[in-house]
Formats: sequence, structure tokens, C-alpha cells
Amino acid sequence: MATPNQFLKFVDDNAETFIKRLGEAVAIPSVSGDSSYRPDVFRMSTWLDGQLKSLGVTTKLVDLGKHVMDGQELPLPPAILGRIGDDPTKKTVLIYGHYDVQPAQKSDGWDTEPFTLAVDEKTGQMIGRGSTDDKGPILGWLNVLEAHKTLGLELPVNLRFCFEGMEESGSEGLDDLIKTEITKGKESWFDGVDCVCISDNYWLNTRTPCLTYGLRGLVYFKITISGPARDLHSGGFGRMVHEPMTDMVNILSKLVAPDGTILVPGVDDLVPAAQDEEIAIYEKLDYSVQDVEDAIGAPVTLSQDKVSVLMGRMRLPALSIHGIEGAFSGPGAKTVIPASVSGKFSIRIVPPQTPEAVDALVQTYIEQEFAKLHSKNTLKIENLHNGRPWAADPKHWNYEAAIRATEAVYKRSPDLTREGGSIPVTLSFAERLGVNVLLLPMGRGDDGAHSTNEKLDRSNFIEGTKLLGTYLYEVGAIKA
Amino acid sequence: MATPNQFLKFVDDNAETFIKRLGEAVAIPSVSGDSSYRPDVFRMSTWLDGQLKSLGVTTKLVDLGKHVMDGQELPLPPAILGRIGDDPTKKTVLIYGHYDVQPAQKSDGWDTEPFTLAVDEKTGQMIGRGSTDDKGPILGWLNVLEAHKTLGLELPVNLRFCFEGMEESGSEGLDDLIKTEITKGKESWFDGVDCVCISDNYWLNTRTPCLTYGLRGLVYFKITISGPARDLHSGGFGRMVHEPMTDMVNILSKLVAPDGTILVPGVDDLVPAAQDEEIAIYEKLDYSVQDVEDAIGAPVTLSQDKVSVLMGRMRLPALSIHGIEGAFSGPGAKTVIPASVSGKFSIRIVPPQTPEAVDALVQTYIEQEFAKLHSKNTLKIENLHNGRPWAADPKHWNYEAAIRATEAVYKRSPDLTREGGSIPVTLSFAERLGVNVLLLPMGRGDDGAHSTNEKLDRSNFIEGTKLLGTYLYEVGAIKA
Repeated sequence: MATPNQFLKFVDDNAETFIKRLGEAVAIPSVSGDSSYRPDVFRMSTWLDGQLKSLGVTTKLVDLGKHVMDGQELPLPPAILGRIGDDPTKKTVLIYGHYDVQPAQKSDGWDTEPFTLAVDEKTGQMIGRGSTDDKGPILGWLNVLEAHKTLGLELPVNLRFCFEGMEESGSEGLDDLIKTEITKGKESWFDGVDCVCISDNYWLNTRTPCLTYGLRGLVYFKITISGPARDLHSGGFGRMVHEPMTDMVNILSKLVAPDGTILVPGVDDLVPAAQDEEIAIYEKLDYSVQDVEDAIGAPVTLSQDKVSVLMGRMRLPALSIHGIEGAFSGPGAKTVIPASVSGKFSIRIVPPQTPEAVDALVQTYIEQEFAKLHSKNTLKIENLHNGRPWAADPKHWNYEAAIRATEAVYKRSPDLTREGGSIPVTLSFAERLGVNVLLLPMGRGDDGAHSTNEKLDRSNFIEGTKLLGTYLYEVGAIKA
Repeated sequence: MATPNQFLKFVDDNAETFIKRLGEAVAIPSVSGDSSYRPDVFRMSTWLDGQLKSLGVTTKLVDLGKHVMDGQELPLPPAILGRIGDDPTKKTVLIYGHYDVQPAQKSDGWDTEPFTLAVDEKTGQMIGRGSTDDKGPILGWLNVLEAHKTLGLELPVNLRFCFEGMEESGSEGLDDLIKTEITKGKESWFDGVDCVCISDNYWLNTRTPCLTYGLRGLVYFKITISGPARDLHSGGFGRMVHEPMTDMVNILSKLVAPDGTILVPGVDDLVPAAQDEEIAIYEKLDYSVQDVEDAIGAPVTLSQDKVSVLMGRMRLPALSIHGIEGAFSGPGAKTVIPASVSGKFSIRIVPPQTPEAVDALVQTYIEQEFAKLHSKNTLKIENLHNGRPWAADPKHWNYEAAIRATEAVYKRSPDLTREGGSIPVTLSFAERLGVNVLLLPMGRGDDGAHSTNEKLDRSNFIEGTKLLGTYLYEVGAIKA
């Protein structure tokens, strides 16, 4: 089932129309994290629902209830469920995207109005909030639907959609929706889904398309060491009392070595060493130590070996110390002995690590190390957040379809990557639906998803649309 | 030269008048650290100058120039120099005090209006900003002068006064004034001064008068470790880069042990161990570990041995870690890798340590320890403040006079103490005038000098006035 040439031609011929539609979407400031924009998030859901309906998709807006933000109770923007195609001989692909965006104001440092899509004809960059995260990818799917409708082409798969409006604010309500929906059996909008495709991350660099098959999880700790009842003056009490900051830096210094090795016994050991086959994946990636240095703006990578550096991000746990609450953190010189300080650190975890296993190792270790200090101060350990890691099988037909689609559109094999961060909805779909999830990014590594001057390159939008369509044909070609 | 009984009786008989005058002084909110109160600081200088003149003191208000505060140029409140008595057969005592106060607002948690002296007849506490720091002691001297003037008594010594209005804001201009003044030889207001008496600190506890013969100095460090050009997300970059916070907690953990031992080689070694004679002073002090626990509100002293705890404050250096600038310090959970962090710590130093010697030891050590980390991050060490320590000879006649005066008034020997903090003006007088300086506190350890509900006990004010007068007679009795 080769991708019809007329589809690819339609995409090229209608590029300006597609960009105009992206401009319409960007113009709706659907900022989920600011209560004053909540009506715009709803406006965006109406706009997207209308687009889907006009392209032949049956939709349902699911009320996710209310929540409290900025001290006021607000209605959550609806999830939009959609379906088109019910051919039992075809595979069924569930598409996820989010129609809300990060906040943006021109005064943050934008060169143009953030909610007016600015197309730079010279560079091909289309600048605007949401252009790449995640309106561009959602509109990529609309483009595919429009091409098929206009050309009278049959879609090669059954499609299901799940678009949410709270991704930038913790995907509130979504996991519950998925959980509820799958209990409905044949009545479920997710019934019969064979695989999931999410387009909400980015290429490793600016050159090479990639598919992402893993995400790290997170365990976030807050350890509080308390001594005196109130802050003391170091003149009056220095060398009289157990100082919580002394104990704190002692404990924090025992968590991670300067070379990144996690010193909490057992945590690194939970992860098996990479085999040759996996190492070969990292060797092939189009990414250099220089790329990392460019991204971080300084030559401070833990190694000069590309594979080591990439494995550090993609397949190893990482412990980062974020800071200390309750100590003196302002400018200048203050001679305070802080009475109670809270150190914050987190561990990015990878399969087969679980938050529970890592949490237990960390708590035991910190208690042991604190006991060694013989301090009269008190210790409290809190776990602020647990998120499981995720890794899919990149040899699954869902990935093979995406690899072939990438090769067809971009004339090169995609990089197979794992991300260092988290996209919680990935885990929700993978675990609740029990099917393979593919992360198929549209944008480039320098798109600046949460930054000023967020952009999507014209070529990524147009070739990306072709990629999404071609991927569907490749899935459709899979033998049942 | 025994203290005349009529002086002691006058003080008792006129207690209410003295308290009324203290009320007048407290009612002028001479807050030096808030530009909006600057006119009140000037009003206070006029009030005090008037009081001194009316009691027979020749005065001179010295313009100390201008400074910038809260972004505006302000005139510095004048230093008030005073002299009474020029008998070459008498000793000449220089009295220091400050007429400015710390900020105070009822909303800070005061039980009464801070600038209205509230006398609690039941407890004898006189509550108001400046009551003990330092208007009470200054007015103690005025009381002594008034008694002698009214009774027609000759003062037993020549007196010189130096009162400033910027002590709570770094004593700006005062060291320069002293420096300039002493170059004037016979014309100097400090010419012929035999000793200095400063009443601007507190008893160790609430029971026992004390004399203070030592103060610690201070060396304040800021060490900055910088890596990436900007803050990074720990998902994207954890275990790829050298994290400045990892290096920072490593360095900070090598400075001081949980038991207070300074780990910077050589710093503790600069201080000779206490000899039996000195240990005996600490053993005799009316102070218990329970007193420390009460003051700090928790049982977290470094030792249960009173002498160890007291020596930690009074005759040992202390290293305190104050906090970290540039790291995540707010509430909640943020997964940031801070790009550049500055650790702040300081060492309280004691004789014979000098800031220069300690600074050199610290800088060398930190550079060595940082090199051991093999980090690609960069290190910068800054010295933000140097202050020398001070210790007077408690066997000097100036102290012996104060001991006898205390025994006469309070019927008990004073504690001989050293303070853990700094009173920079002490060092200015000791070093520039080259005479013995005595710290003769009037208030108690729980007066709350810089806190809400600052108070001076009625008995400390009245007996303290007797103490100051008696001290002058004891000095006057010293053989030349």
C-alpha cells in the first residue's frame, strides 16, 4: 500500500493554505496555565472540534470537571475524542495531541507578537507560540485528513483522536478519562486501538528526523534538616550548636559524584549495562559532543565520548541537586545560621528502575548517612513526586512503519532516540491501553518549545505532514 | 575614693524622672536604616546634644558627610563629641554609645507601640525600641551627670563622649572621624584618654552582670561555581554535564565537620589551646547548657559540657554555611540544573588569627579540593568581608575598676565573658587610641535588642546607672 503520489502533491500544492490554518490556530492564545486565558482555551477546543467535524471526523467533547487555579475554581477545558473509519480489516491508530500552549508575552523577549504567526520567508521559520508545541503537529493531522477528503482518497487505517487542553498544566483529568474510557469495552472510543502515535517531542538536532522509544521517569526528594527553633546569628551561636546547613551539605555531597555516578548504593546497579547492539544505536545517532556544548553554551560535558554522553541522557539514571529552601539565598553577605533547611534533589530513572525501588534505596541510605553525622538535628525525608520510566520496543511494527515512512519522505533513516525527560501521557496510553506507543516528532531540536520565539520550520511542517500521512500508509500495509 | 552614698540615693529617688526621660528618647524613632526616618535621627541628635549641654557638657556635632541609601543621597547624622572635666590629676574616660535604633513596626509582632515606652509595673520591664540598644545605657550616663550636677558633686574623672547615629547601619563615617580626630594632638577631643567604656552589649543570662573582654572577627567568603551558560532542565541534561551544585555541595561539605571542627587545614591550629587559668574563667561563668537550649529553643548544642559550649562561642573560631545563591530556593519541586551557584560561608575568628592568614588558608584549600573534583566547571573565590578579632586584658585596671564597681552595686562578681560576634567600633577605639577598652553591659541576655518587644528591665536601668557612676569612682581611685 504505497503512499499515493497525489497525496504528497496535494500537500506541496496546499502548503500556503496549511500555513494559513496554522496561523489561525496560533492566533488563539490557549494558555492553560493562566486563568485569565481559560476562555481562549475553550475557544481553541471549539475551533479544533469544528475543523475535525468539517473533515469528516465524529467527535465528542468530554467534560473533565473543574479544578482550582490562582485561587479560583475553573472549568477544565474538554478533551476532544474523535473517530473516522471503522473497517475491521484495517488497523486502528490513536493520535494524541494537545491544543493548549505555554504562556507568552512579547515583553518576555519575543522578536514578534507571540500569538501572531510570523513566517520568515528567508529562513522558512514560522514563529509563534504553539507553532511547534503542539499546534503544528495537530494541524499536520488535519492536513492529512483534508488531503484525503478533497482527493476522495480512502484512509489506509481507522483513526482515533484524543486531543487535550491541559498538557502544559499537568494533563489534569486526562489519565482519569483514559481509565474511564477503557472500561466501556465496545462502547469505548479507544476500543480496537492497535497502536498510538504521539507527535509532541523533537529531533535531537536540526538535521535528522528521529523516533523516540524511551523516556526517563522521576523521583523527587525533599530532605529537611531542622535544629534551632529559629534562625540564629552566627556571631552569637557559631560553634555552639549543630548547624542544619553543615549536616545538609554533608548529606547532599554523598548523593552523586562529580562525574555523575550515583552514590546511593544500588541505584545505578538496577540498570543493566548496555549491550553491543544497543551501543550501536548510540554510535549511529547524528549527534556530537559539540552539539551538546552548543546547546548548553559551555564545554562542560561529563565526557568527550559521544556514546557516553548520549547514554547519560538516554539510558542512565541521573541525580541532580536543585537547591536548598530555607537557607540564605539572596545577594550580599548575611551571617545567619538557618534553623531549618530543605534540600531538593531528584533522580531521573530508567527501566527497569521503579520509583518505589529507588525511593526505598534513597530513604534507607540517607537515614544511614545522617546517623553517621551524630547530629542532634532532626531529619525528615519527603518524596514529592514519582513518575515511572518508559521504553517501547523499537522493533515493533509501529516503529518499523515510522522508520519506512521517514526513509520515504526524508530519504534517510531516522535516529532512534530515548529522551531524558518525561511525557506522562505516553505512560498513560502505554500502560492503560497495553499497546505500542510511538513518539514521532515533527519539529527540530532548536524549536524552543517553552521559550521565546518558539518556531516550527516550514519544511518540518510540510514534510512532516507527508511523514504523518506516509506513516499511516505504512501501518496500513502491515500484515494483520 | 568611695562612691558617695548621696549619689546612690539620688539615683533611687529619681528613678521615675530617669524613666520618663528614657520614654522621651524612645519616642523619637531614630531608625538609621530607613531613609524615611532620617529626620528623626537628626532630631534625636539635637535632643541628646541638648541634654548633654544642660548637664554641663561641652559638645561638638561633627558632620560626617553624606551617603547613599535606598537610591537617594542622604546626610549622615552627626557624631556628638563631648567633654566635661580637664583635671590633669584625674584619669580621662571616653564613653561611647549610639543614639540610632533598629527599625520597628507594631505589625512586626510587637505587643505595644514600639516607639512608646511601655513600663510593665509587674515585671519591671520597660518595653520599646532602643530601650536597651542603646538609649538606656546612654541615658544611664546622663543620669550620672544629672546626679552630680544637682548634688554639686565633683566628677571623679574627666569624661569624654562619642555618640554616633549610624551604628545600626555600619557605623558609617565613625572610623574616619576617630582617625582624623587623633591626628589633632592636643586639639583632639580624644587627647589624654586613658581608657574607653562601651555599654552596648548584654549579660550572658538574666541573672549575672558581666564584663566583656573579647570579640570574634569575621572572614566572609563567596565561592561561585559556574558551568552551563544558562539553567538547564534535568530531564534534558541530567548526567550529561558537570553540574555546579554537585561540585558546590562537595566543596561545602569539606569545610566544617558536624561537630564544629573546622576542616580547612591550619585554621583551628592557629588558636592555642586554653590553659587551666582560662578554663577556670569559663567554669565560673553563670551559664548552663540549658541556658543555650532555652535561647535557641531546641536541644542541639554541640556538647553537653558547659565549658566546651562556652569556649565554642567565646574563644574558638566558627565556620557557618549561610546558604547558596543562584540555586532553586523556593517552595515546591523544580527540576532545574542551576547554571551558576554561589555558596556563602564565613569564619568567626579569634586572636591570634588574622583575616589575612585565614583567608589565605581557605583560598588555597578550596582551590586544592576543587581540583580534586576534576570538574570542567569554573571556580571563583571572593572575600566579601574582613573583620579583625579583639581581646583585651581583663586584668587591666580598667577591668579591675569595673569588677569592683559591679561587686559594690550587685553584691557579686561579674562574669568575665568574650562575645561570639563583632562590635567594630571597639576595634576602632582599641587600635587607633591604643588604650584599654571595656565592654560594660547594662541589659540582660533576653532583652531582644534587634527583635520585637525589645526591653530593658527597670532594675538594670537603675542599678546600671549606679554601676556606671560607681565605675567612674573606681577608675578615679586608681593610682596614676
